[in-house]
Amino acid sequence: MTVTTFTVSGMTCGHCVNAVSDELRELDGVRDVSIDLVAGGDSSVTITSEQPLEPAALTAAVAEAGDYTVTL
Amino acid sequence: MTVTTFTVSGMTCGHCVNAVSDELRELDGVRDVSIDLVAGGDSSVTITSEQPLEPAALTAAVAEAGDYTVTL
Repeated sequence: MTVTTFTVSGMTCGHCVNAVSDELRELDGVRDVSIDLVAGGDSSVTITSEQPLEPAALTAAVAEAGDYTVTL
Repeated sequence: MTVTTFTVSGMTCGHCVNAVSDELRELDGVRDVSIDLVAGGDSSVTITSEQPLEPAALTAAVAEAGDYTVTL
């Protein structure tokens, strides 16, 4: 198992958390996604996956969820 | 046709607008719902309906959408 942590900014509420979380869970090998929401600030995202995740895949998944910014 | 305007606070993003709007559109006789989002502030809601709407129905619909506050 691999644990990946990064920051997403631009989320303001639980709906945003759900949107981002849903997209990340669709990535291949992802077992768990945890997001600590800081509304309007930098929220911590922790992903547990079966294998290391491609940074480009993470960025693309978050972009799919909406207008959020990823800092790896 | 009746036009009703009121204020909803607690919405922070487009997801919140969609949640509130979807619930209000389900009310009997509602033809159109327009929300001017002020993220984290007082957002104006304008509803066009075939007949006057019950204040209690509006409040219940917004409560159904989430943790928002209605000021009629």
